[in-house]
Amino acid sequence: MPAAISLKECRALAFDALSHAGVSHANAEAVADHITRAEADGCKSHGLFRLPGYVASVNSGAADPQAEPEIVDAAPGLVAVDARRGFAPLAIARGRGALADKAHEQGIACMTIRNSFNFAALWPDIEPLAEAGLVAFTFVNSQSFMAPAGGTEALFGTNPMAFACPRGGGRAPMVFDQASAAMARGEIQIAARDGHTVPAGTGLGSDGQPTTDPAAILAGVQLPFGGYKGSSIALMVELMTGGLSGGFFGYESAADHKRDGGPSNGAQSFIAIDPGRLAGPEFFAHVEALFERLLANGEARLPGDRRLAARARTAEEGITVEDALYTTLQGLAGRV
Amino acid sequence: MPAAISLKECRALAFDALSHAGVSHANAEAVADHITRAEADGCKSHGLFRLPGYVASVNSGAADPQAEPEIVDAAPGLVAVDARRGFAPLAIARGRGALADKAHEQGIACMTIRNSFNFAALWPDIEPLAEAGLVAFTFVNSQSFMAPAGGTEALFGTNPMAFACPRGGGRAPMVFDQASAAMARGEIQIAARDGHTVPAGTGLGSDGQPTTDPAAILAGVQLPFGGYKGSSIALMVELMTGGLSGGFFGYESAADHKRDGGPSNGAQSFIAIDPGRLAGPEFFAHVEALFERLLANGEARLPGDRRLAARARTAEEGITVEDALYTTLQGLAGRV
Repeated sequence: MPAAISLKECRALAFDALSHAGVSHANAEAVADHITRAEADGCKSHGLFRLPGYVASVNSGAADPQAEPEIVDAAPGLVAVDARRGFAPLAIARGRGALADKAHEQGIACMTIRNSFNFAALWPDIEPLAEAGLVAFTFVNSQSFMAPAGGTEALFGTNPMAFACPRGGGRAPMVFDQASAAMARGEIQIAARDGHTVPAGTGLGSDGQPTTDPAAILAGVQLPFGGYKGSSIALMVELMTGGLSGGFFGYESAADHKRDGGPSNGAQSFIAIDPGRLAGPEFFAHVEALFERLLANGEARLPGDRRLAARARTAEEGITVEDALYTTLQGLAGRV
Repeated sequence: MPAAISLKECRALAFDALSHAGVSHANAEAVADHITRAEADGCKSHGLFRLPGYVASVNSGAADPQAEPEIVDAAPGLVAVDARRGFAPLAIARGRGALADKAHEQGIACMTIRNSFNFAALWPDIEPLAEAGLVAFTFVNSQSFMAPAGGTEALFGTNPMAFACPRGGGRAPMVFDQASAAMARGEIQIAARDGHTVPAGTGLGSDGQPTTDPAAILAGVQLPFGGYKGSSIALMVELMTGGLSGGFFGYESAADHKRDGGPSNGAQSFIAIDPGRLAGPEFFAHVEALFERLLANGEARLPGDRRLAARARTAEEGITVEDALYTTLQGLAGRV
């Protein structure tokens, strides 16, 4: 039977587990906050489920649990962050204020992050920028799991990107967050565990041949969504992360990885734009008109609407944690 | 038998046809240059084939052939261009220098264009930015032809985006340019003409049901590539164009369109980033290492390599123009 806990308890459990593993107060707070935001939005694959991986990367010596990110003011519109092999959430939290300030001052700004162990959902990284009235992008790579279109060997991470648009009238921003891979790695793992096949186009076996066997794909490579177009997006994400930050590309991240079950040393970038400086205050009403038409169009949905519905629900009801995971986490937190 | 002409003759033919229709010298030069770059790169669908459409939009009164774009310095990192119902190429050519200067000075800059009649390939718009050492994005919308995922009615344009990465050693930049639609509208038109079916997922008939009949899709709606992920990209393009510029969204552009066979009044945006300010001069060698690995990976290709091969060929050999089109163009140029 799953454990029912409040979001406050979720945050405390994550903080305690990280602290018990030797993670600094600032890093533990940033990661616990990120995990709690994923749980609040109903995204269990990036919530408490990730906590043992963070701890594993500390125990293996891969990530530095005491890392203090270095924030460099690289240009009037640029912030360059070196996470110093720490976890991504602290590096992002430390740099995001400068990014937002520059975007408001200059109209647009960019922040790169390198040497960052990222294991988290992306939308919480840019939602605060959109809450501050900014249109925002973020791109992140990871150890390579995916071949380019036409290829047979892992070169790219699953390489998600997220995009956020602020909304007027106190509405939560529209944020989408999607991998460049045809299917999330976690979903392939679940299909393998449950003995299901996956759709054609999900990946190749280690022989380089297309397969619908999830176990064969996990031993082989994933493929991008949408054929060569998704592959171009994945390449763009590599260039906007490992390229622009001077950090690792996906294949470099894979070579660095300790196979500890934790996150890899990846790179990330952000772009934030002040739409009011270009489109004026009418921007918000104009965007709402588009969204209204979208919602009136057949069964079309606004990206993120399920997350926001979950957020309203979990604020009242809290969350549930699968029993075996809860026991593991209690152990990691030193509570047993 | 197709006519064989040099690129110089291509440019002169386009310029003369536009001038003959009453297009100003500056606008005719900018459009002729754009058309010639498409022909040079082997992209006939965006080359001379488009010229009758440009002329039609002048004859219908939709586009202003004498338009002088208004360039506003909106912020240290922002350029806002109003094309004043002129053709996109002149607005872009007039604003791009300021965009590049701001990107070099601030590290990143953005340019929006509204009230612009765009009918052209996208890669020529950002290749010059990458030639100036900048990483660049561009997004453009058009009259709506495409439903969002789950929808049944046209809401978005086919909404291409392009991304460019500079390369060292005198190499041409890597540029990809791809529609958010599963299939280019021109390809669907050709399939309809030739009596072929199109792949499932290309579009819906006017009854809102999936079909592989291209004529039914042309009367109905196109669909995004890659399902809901491509639909999110298309939505992002709308927000980055009609939204950010204060111009038209795809459905507003469709309402404005005169059904003259010419371009629609759309919007566009650009982002340009100076990678050297973030990753240092090592950026270029790092990117080449990624590209080398990509090219060694099975049958994977670098986006744009076919275009660059065509460019080398047409510089020597010139281009061919299908006979009926050549006759039409000679007429438009007042040469018969």
